[in-house]
Amino acid sequence: MASRRKFIRNTALGLTGVTIFPSINRAGSLFVEKENASALPVGIAGYTFLHFDIPQSIQMMQRVDVHFMSVKDFHLPLNSSQEKIDEVKKQFQDAGITIYAVGVIYMRTKESVDQAFDYAKKVGVPIIVGVPDYDLIGYSEKKVKEYNIKLAIHNHGPEDKLYPSPKEAYERIKNRDERMGLCLDIGHAMRAGVEPAKAVKEYGKRIFDLHIKDVTKAEKDGQAIEAGRGIINFPAFVKALRKVNYPGYCSIEFEKDMKDPLPGIAESVGYFKGIKEGTA
Amino acid sequence: MASRRKFIRNTALGLTGVTIFPSINRAGSLFVEKENASALPVGIAGYTFLHFDIPQSIQMMQRVDVHFMSVKDFHLPLNSSQEKIDEVKKQFQDAGITIYAVGVIYMRTKESVDQAFDYAKKVGVPIIVGVPDYDLIGYSEKKVKEYNIKLAIHNHGPEDKLYPSPKEAYERIKNRDERMGLCLDIGHAMRAGVEPAKAVKEYGKRIFDLHIKDVTKAEKDGQAIEAGRGIINFPAFVKALRKVNYPGYCSIEFEKDMKDPLPGIAESVGYFKGIKEGTA
Repeated sequence: MASRRKFIRNTALGLTGVTIFPSINRAGSLFVEKENASALPVGIAGYTFLHFDIPQSIQMMQRVDVHFMSVKDFHLPLNSSQEKIDEVKKQFQDAGITIYAVGVIYMRTKESVDQAFDYAKKVGVPIIVGVPDYDLIGYSEKKVKEYNIKLAIHNHGPEDKLYPSPKEAYERIKNRDERMGLCLDIGHAMRAGVEPAKAVKEYGKRIFDLHIKDVTKAEKDGQAIEAGRGIINFPAFVKALRKVNYPGYCSIEFEKDMKDPLPGIAESVGYFKGIKEGTA
Repeated sequence: MASRRKFIRNTALGLTGVTIFPSINRAGSLFVEKENASALPVGIAGYTFLHFDIPQSIQMMQRVDVHFMSVKDFHLPLNSSQEKIDEVKKQFQDAGITIYAVGVIYMRTKESVDQAFDYAKKVGVPIIVGVPDYDLIGYSEKKVKEYNIKLAIHNHGPEDKLYPSPKEAYERIKNRDERMGLCLDIGHAMRAGVEPAKAVKEYGKRIFDLHIKDVTKAEKDGQAIEAGRGIINFPAFVKALRKVNYPGYCSIEFEKDMKDPLPGIAESVGYFKGIKEGTA
């Protein structure tokens, strides 16, 4: 376990106090060395639980043995008091779940940028997944420097006015502070015709977070589907993540069957773990 | 799709009329060639659905997009009439599911051997997964020849008196008709200290069916767990299956949370698919 701990400590984007490991239940009489499995830890993007409260969400995460969460505002409003934030963090912590990022947060005014960074600081996370209006990117960069909190701009798909693919985000941050980067949503990217593996290689160190899903088509009307059932080349994607030494979490965002998501979450988590181990 | 169809036709243990493909929903604007994914098709071992009737079981199989089933007697009793058998087959067929084997069937008397082969013939499957008493193996072989139906002897774990590991089955069939073979239960094998990949290489062409699961320990008291969370080396196992050109189905048998198995089935199916694609 020593080297696994070290790996997580050194690479999990500066997160401190990580005491839960994705593979902790592997302990026992190991015939096989599976240390590799602890790289590219699996998380869940909070939006997955749109129709569920925190206890229900926690229960699903425990069921699929996933311990890292990017928290969404419907579980923890942006204007929450420190007391409320601490209470929600404790709920997750008590269940063995670490909140490692907040978002997606839309930033359409300076005030919303201010609020996002204040919120992230109170939550104690090193990353905000956000969607700043173009004319707020410069202001966001100032805040990134002031708070030493990374901003990961999230791409949507072809229908999006601001970030229809990761390229629109990357082009606007590539010459800025190195704590300005991307949350690569591989499903939306694929719908925009961008191969996730190619995006990973191209945007490399500027990728801070991932929203992992599959889609039925590389077109605007492609639908969300269980990872592995769609068209994304996951082996190539995971190999690319290793190639750029991606240090962050791999968060599943499941957007099909959102009122009964557990089987699809489970299949997607299992598939991604299988891809990881199969390509290790 | 042409080569995928051909592959299935040529390798699926002589099964005819296979019209459902595990990856049929992959059609669309494929960026990636995923033909390999159709090899080693995923199925489900009927025992998984111990606490569910046929409609409930079908619903779960459809949810996880699995279309091949080894049917267990609690869904289709061994003494069923042809009419009853046809009715149950139609239920599965209408749902896009092919019954490719029957079992596990225990054979403690000549009559039970007779009944098993008669039943398999009526169901129209090319394989019986069975557990014959030692002194009935010779008689079973006669029936294998008479019916041209394969017998796949199923191993349990260390606590089993007849087949505590696949070795006890293999040793008793290796010099018999080549339609005498094994249903390798990799979880029970592992509990007996037998590495599944090693068993596959050793018993090669005599493996006709698989019960796929994971276990927490390579010891008698190892517990069933979602595939990928336990100690079995799945990449090695799948590579071994390719090495011996295993032509059959890869049936998940999920024996944890048996009263609420869907999330665990889904995670196991996803994981196994991920391992397949990751090692392809």
